[in-house]
Amino acid sequence: MKAFEFLRENNHDGLTVVLDKGLPPKFVEDYLKVCGDYIDFVKFGWGTSAVIDRDVVKEKINYYKDWDIKVYPGGTLFEYAYAKDKFEEFLNECHNLKFDAVEISDGSSDIPLEDRKKAIEKAKDFGFTVLTEVGKKMPEKDKKLTICDRINLINFDLNSGADYVIIEGRESGKGIGLYDGEGKVKESELEELARRVNVKKVIFEAPQKSQQVFFILKFGNSVNLANIAFDDVISLETLRRGLRGDTFNKISPISNNTQ
Amino acid sequence: MKAFEFLRENNHDGLTVVLDKGLPPKFVEDYLKVCGDYIDFVKFGWGTSAVIDRDVVKEKINYYKDWDIKVYPGGTLFEYAYAKDKFEEFLNECHNLKFDAVEISDGSSDIPLEDRKKAIEKAKDFGFTVLTEVGKKMPEKDKKLTICDRINLINFDLNSGADYVIIEGRESGKGIGLYDGEGKVKESELEELARRVNVKKVIFEAPQKSQQVFFILKFGNSVNLANIAFDDVISLETLRRGLRGDTFNKISPISNNTQ
Amino acid sequence: MKAFEFLRENNHDGLTVVLDKGLPPKFVEDYLKVCGDYIDFVKFGWGTSAVIDRDVVKEKINYYKDWDIKVYPGGTLFEYAYAKDKFEEFLNECHNLKFDAVEISDGSSDIPLEDRKKAIEKAKDFGFTVLTEVGKKMPEKDKKLTICDRINLINFDLNSGADYVIIEGRESGKGIGLYDGEGKVKESELEELARRVNVKKVIFEAPQKSQQVFFILKFGNSVNLANIAFDDVISLETLRRGLRGDTFNKISPISNNTQ
Repeated sequence: MKAFEFLRENNHDGLTVVLDKGLPPKFVEDYLKVCGDYIDFVKFGWGTSAVIDRDVVKEKINYYKDWDIKVYPGGTLFEYAYAKDKFEEFLNECHNLKFDAVEISDGSSDIPLEDRKKAIEKAKDFGFTVLTEVGKKMPEKDKKLTICDRINLINFDLNSGADYVIIEGRESGKGIGLYDGEGKVKESELEELARRVNVKKVIFEAPQKSQQVFFILKFGNSVNLANIAFDDVISLETLRRGLRGDTFNKISPISNNTQ
Repeated sequence: MKAFEFLRENNHDGLTVVLDKGLPPKFVEDYLKVCGDYIDFVKFGWGTSAVIDRDVVKEKINYYKDWDIKVYPGGTLFEYAYAKDKFEEFLNECHNLKFDAVEISDGSSDIPLEDRKKAIEKAKDFGFTVLTEVGKKMPEKDKKLTICDRINLINFDLNSGADYVIIEGRESGKGIGLYDGEGKVKESELEELARRVNVKKVIFEAPQKSQQVFFILKFGNSVNLANIAFDDVISLETLRRGLRGDTFNKISPISNNTQ
Repeated sequence: MKAFEFLRENNHDGLTVVLDKGLPPKFVEDYLKVCGDYIDFVKFGWGTSAVIDRDVVKEKINYYKDWDIKVYPGGTLFEYAYAKDKFEEFLNECHNLKFDAVEISDGSSDIPLEDRKKAIEKAKDFGFTVLTEVGKKMPEKDKKLTICDRINLINFDLNSGADYVIIEGRESGKGIGLYDGEGKVKESELEELARRVNVKKVIFEAPQKSQQVFFILKFGNSVNLANIAFDDVISLETLRRGLRGDTFNKISPISNNTQ
């Protein structure tokens, strides 16, 4: 039972995806007692998994599993393996380490669409939940993508079997994807996107509080958000429930205008 | 005994109020071994208490109590309960969870002065230490408050029985209360405030290091500071004692010009 | 064995110096399971050691020693003791607490060159690894140092017996040393420095990710970096190995152009 149970309302079914960039194992076990209920996926950011002991990686995945949280390595690790022609070994290692999901992306490399499709299908065949990511890591490359390019790729990935598509925002949330240099959302682009894709299948990387507030007020408290820092999970949950100043009195129960 | 005991000087009696926005319980126990001596109050920020398990909330409060630290839920939770006409239940739950203090505020809602006074009195009757807060969460509302409004409200709260009054700065410390958009202190407003209120009863939210330095150099190392991030408590204590570059050689023992 | 061992490459011998500004002891023990392999030195920042219990300081140093990590108190603590004519007591206490290294600096005070040399020699005589620091804590004082001043002092310190020289960047990495107000590296000054000192003996304080990326791309993945936040150690290791977008495909094995 939660404290102050009599104030409980504004339930939601928005996905929360946390960025774990190398948390210590016992700390993870401890921290899930506070916020394990509010996390759906954890990404071991970019290639961080590959510099950490196997035993520690497995121990952490186990703690997350205890709370029904799905864990996956960052897309950059997939790209790194793929570029070295070790996709099969990558999937086997993900399986052995007990990852539940994988991310297929092309943020740091170029992968033809046909190969992207095959990668998604192969990962699904292995039994993984598949998330893909749309966007480039380097701002100068990313800004060449029009909103139409992004929309087309989102729908391509979903049609190829991806379970969810993540919109790139990086750890900073600035000058990338749907964000301008200060981290403000480009609203007209977002609206175009919302008209042409199924927003329930999209997860927005929104590392900054102002961005989380924006998406919640725009799409309702069930909007899917990613790249949440581990120490912001509780804050995000209070934002979704109207328990923080920024969304106080602005959340309507079942306020999901994403459909 | 502290390390390097022979260097110990510049004692102070400034209050340090830490913002806990959802720390894991065992981590809290561990972390107090490092800085428990330097914390007077811990605020479980805004409505975070209401999304965390009762047992975890109680466990954490116990760890803090072991170090004589008083814990209270953020003012936003009071406002949330108050708006739903559940103030009595709120106070009972605070009592059952063993909170020592409560915060009465109107940062996210509007509460008539007479009701504010009654709320302070009722919380005092329940046996709580009462902190109030002056300021609005939304910058556009907050900037309508003149410095005279703030001063009058501080004195109103103290006359109503509040133990301390907190000056709003939020987690960011920017564009709110006494801070401009970059987080710099509006000095003439602060000086007006210092002339007309008892600064020993005021606690300044000062989340940024530059703000902590400013207040220490302005009012002496016994100035009361709040919204200190858990990982800045040790840094703040070194600032108060002249053990960091920013205040090195600038602290005079018993340098308290706040009276 | 690390996870995804088959992807392991881009080894390096760059030093990583972590800033510990008061981490809890059990957390340190836990966190080293994740990143202990990648840390060479830990600095207990500025005077933080002097406000923490001796037993806790010793316990933490022991955990670091288990991973062959050398620990030293920040230079500001040396300066504080030195200014009070307690250098001998300072060195004895460092010895008793089992610190492996000390930092000699003048960031917050002025110390004649001859005394600086003697301090370095005395610390060496006590058996400590000696790091010195070049730069002033206050931007207005620091900017009076020309790049030639910095270069001369680096070589002076190395000739006096210092093991490494740290280039000041502070916790923020802005408006200090080689960084402009936005934290960008002043490239022409850096190049002048690289021409005239042995870069293998220099450690650059580089708290921001963009700065870490810059130095790795400029000098190779074996460049020595300091003031790394504890939760950025894993990120830095992935940057050195080309496992993060910013350096993906940009690291050549044994890519060390610092010699």
